[in-house]
Amino acid sequence: MTAVADRPTLGSPASALVCRNCGAQFPLGAQHACFECFGPLEIGYDADALARVTRADIEAGPHSLWRYAGLLPVGQNPATRVDSGTGMTPLIRADRLADELGFTAPVWVKDDSANPTHSFKDRVVSVAITAARELGFSRIACASTGNLGNSVAAHAARIGMPSIVFVPSDLEAPKIVQSAIYGGTLVGIEGSYDDVNRLCSELSETDEFESTGFVNVNVRPYYAEGSKTLGFEVAEQLGWRLPAQYVAPMASGSMLTKINKAFKELVAAGLVPSSQWSVFGAQSAGCAPIATAFASGADVVVPVKPTGIAKSLNIGNPADGPYALDAVRGSGGAMAAVGDEEIREGIRLLARTTGVFAETAGGVTVAVLKKLAASGELDTSRETVVFNTGDGLKTIDAVSGGARPTAVIPPTIKGMRAAGLL
Amino acid sequence: MTAVADRPTLGSPASALVCRNCGAQFPLGAQHACFECFGPLEIGYDADALARVTRADIEAGPHSLWRYAGLLPVGQNPATRVDSGTGMTPLIRADRLADELGFTAPVWVKDDSANPTHSFKDRVVSVAITAARELGFSRIACASTGNLGNSVAAHAARIGMPSIVFVPSDLEAPKIVQSAIYGGTLVGIEGSYDDVNRLCSELSETDEFESTGFVNVNVRPYYAEGSKTLGFEVAEQLGWRLPAQYVAPMASGSMLTKINKAFKELVAAGLVPSSQWSVFGAQSAGCAPIATAFASGADVVVPVKPTGIAKSLNIGNPADGPYALDAVRGSGGAMAAVGDEEIREGIRLLARTTGVFAETAGGVTVAVLKKLAASGELDTSRETVVFNTGDGLKTIDAVSGGARPTAVIPPTIKGMRAAGLL
Ligand SMILES: Cc1ncc(COP(=O)(O)O)c(C=O)c1O
Ligand SMILES: Cc1ncc(COP(=O)(O)O)c(C=O)c1O
Ligand SMILES: [Zn+2]
Ligand SMILES: [Zn+2]
Repeated sequence: MTAVADRPTLGSPASALVCRNCGAQFPLGAQHACFECFGPLEIGYDADALARVTRADIEAGPHSLWRYAGLLPVGQNPATRVDSGTGMTPLIRADRLADELGFTAPVWVKDDSANPTHSFKDRVVSVAITAARELGFSRIACASTGNLGNSVAAHAARIGMPSIVFVPSDLEAPKIVQSAIYGGTLVGIEGSYDDVNRLCSELSETDEFESTGFVNVNVRPYYAEGSKTLGFEVAEQLGWRLPAQYVAPMASGSMLTKINKAFKELVAAGLVPSSQWSVFGAQSAGCAPIATAFASGADVVVPVKPTGIAKSLNIGNPADGPYALDAVRGSGGAMAAVGDEEIREGIRLLARTTGVFAETAGGVTVAVLKKLAASGELDTSRETVVFNTGDGLKTIDAVSGGARPTAVIPPTIKGMRAAGLL
Repeated sequence: MTAVADRPTLGSPASALVCRNCGAQFPLGAQHACFECFGPLEIGYDADALARVTRADIEAGPHSLWRYAGLLPVGQNPATRVDSGTGMTPLIRADRLADELGFTAPVWVKDDSANPTHSFKDRVVSVAITAARELGFSRIACASTGNLGNSVAAHAARIGMPSIVFVPSDLEAPKIVQSAIYGGTLVGIEGSYDDVNRLCSELSETDEFESTGFVNVNVRPYYAEGSKTLGFEVAEQLGWRLPAQYVAPMASGSMLTKINKAFKELVAAGLVPSSQWSVFGAQSAGCAPIATAFASGADVVVPVKPTGIAKSLNIGNPADGPYALDAVRGSGGAMAAVGDEEIREGIRLLARTTGVFAETAGGVTVAVLKKLAASGELDTSRETVVFNTGDGLKTIDAVSGGARPTAVIPPTIKGMRAAGLL
């Protein structure tokens, strides 16, 4: 893709691709690994360009993540945006949840199940497909644990671009059906997500996939920036300030890391007052390589073979694990992992106190909130934001056993009485 | 409920409950049937109060349906609103759908699967629960074909109000689980929706349910107004003008009728230029009492026993059928019904051309759009809005047979080649 690799993005505050390992810089393009050290690349920005963005500019923008285009690598020209109305999801003040967990400070739920395909992945996909099109790719692809595939297939259908989605074949049925319904190509892989990811890396090097952008492989530096908008929105929705604590789920560890990056950029750009915040990471006990490294004080994340019901988080070899560890340790936060029964209880707790029905990943996050509040690692006197990143309808089987009618009766007053309901 | 029946709603443009049959007027309260003729009541407004509402007022409001509080019976005081962030869902320009169906004018999809519980019912519930609380009810209830129950249970959990939801026990599993997960009471009824509805009417007259507001029974006049916000949003999102045609699904016929009422109110209030529009109604062949009356030129809707996969539309004895007939006939529109296979094809057509995954009700609507465009009853040279009112994840089994992976392969290049994907 050298032909397109050097095409600059007009009006973008992004200045270069920067190696997260050795700091080497490369021109903006379709590159994701450092030519010097093979480290992962991320987007570097012109600090002056970021500092020119004002609250008023943002507030005058569309009611979607594209209002933050001035802080993103692509999409400055509205005509170039892939816009499905993603973003600006509700930030819900969860007083009943706070009460139940003993918080004296406000607890907020950032509910990304409100996005078009009902997960936060619509954010990374909006940015990645916009970038992929600008970079000249004619087909879009991804390696997915479910939600990413749903979003890639939907966005591709919207703009009429061919898509090819790779998922473990044993995913939850709703996620399989949703990825297939949009009419793109869906490939089920007999293996784990890590197998899927490895295959996609290999494919991205083949001639046949030369014009295919894998959103989370060769377009990953752009893709990852989409998660920053979760942080931007929370700050704006709180009235342009940062919360003292946030709890986020981790699969590859990218999203948690980028929310932290967003907070730093907002402070650097003068868009929010400088303040201290702590970052908390949530994993499922069936796949907790990052939380395990945290607990043991290790810098290296040892890959695991994932199990358990939080399939969307089942990445055994997380690419951004070390960066998530840095974000959490550097902020004085913590990590924890919770088992399947706690995850189910987390889903029910969130639903019954806030009216938000989360998928297993949200159950993980709420269960970790509960656990860390109980242990004192989370400070219940500090304002806290919890990220619900997915939708309960996508992992319905996880809770269907315990979510049944109170009674099934004939349509009569007598039936009501017999069931003790009258 | 006479104690609360006369409590006026401060600052509301609503002036009375008006009988839709004989025109008799009653004070605003918890009444739903006329004391003179037993006809259904609807909210009457002070025309001057509506005319005082400006576009600027609305545009300065929140990004939710509550921006239209000046045109609704309740919620003028923000502190009284039950606000889940419902409304202001995307209006998607569906060029690829328009092309495929031979439209030369724009086709837009109003996508209400983006609401918090993923159907348009969050609109009627936001308004109904706000009213119920103001009217002094301490428990909230409904008779539901699925989506309404999901929304009532979620909103009740959000505000910590007890709820009791009645549904046919043979609903789709995701809708049952979603209604149960929020922790309220869920009663499965061995019978049809019409049986459920009859039981709820009876219960609303009992002493035990005196302080229970049934959103679509004794709170129905308020509830129904919530659907107007679909019409308001379409007009605002089109830049304060009305489309020439709209296609809406019908169960009881309420929503279609209220969108028409919304358009009339916008013209009367001077918020949009006066224009001609035609209304089109969509039903499933398994339950088409209103479309059947339309086809035969009858004024009376003959109840049917519903069958077919569009369960959320399976109301055999539709309360607002005659009003839906009036709206469609009065505007020079039409109605049609489509069978289960067409419904499935409608879901796939919408998904593959616009990236929107609709439930069976949306499949009904898109299939009717297709059918009436082909027959010439819809004018393909006039701008058309199609309402997608529900989410594909809630009726996943309807399409799962035809939405499978293209291939299931081992995680290897060799596997890709063997499947013809490389
Ligand atoms: C619902 C949900 N939440 C969170 C994540 C975590 O994402 P990340 O890989 O950025 O850590 C995923 C990843 O697939 C997800 O699907
Ligand atoms: C998804 C969906 N669309 C449309 C309708 C029709 O509503 P109405 O009874 O107002 O005609 C319903 C009713 O339950 C519904 O669930
Ligand atoms: Zn490097
Ligand atoms: Zn009357």
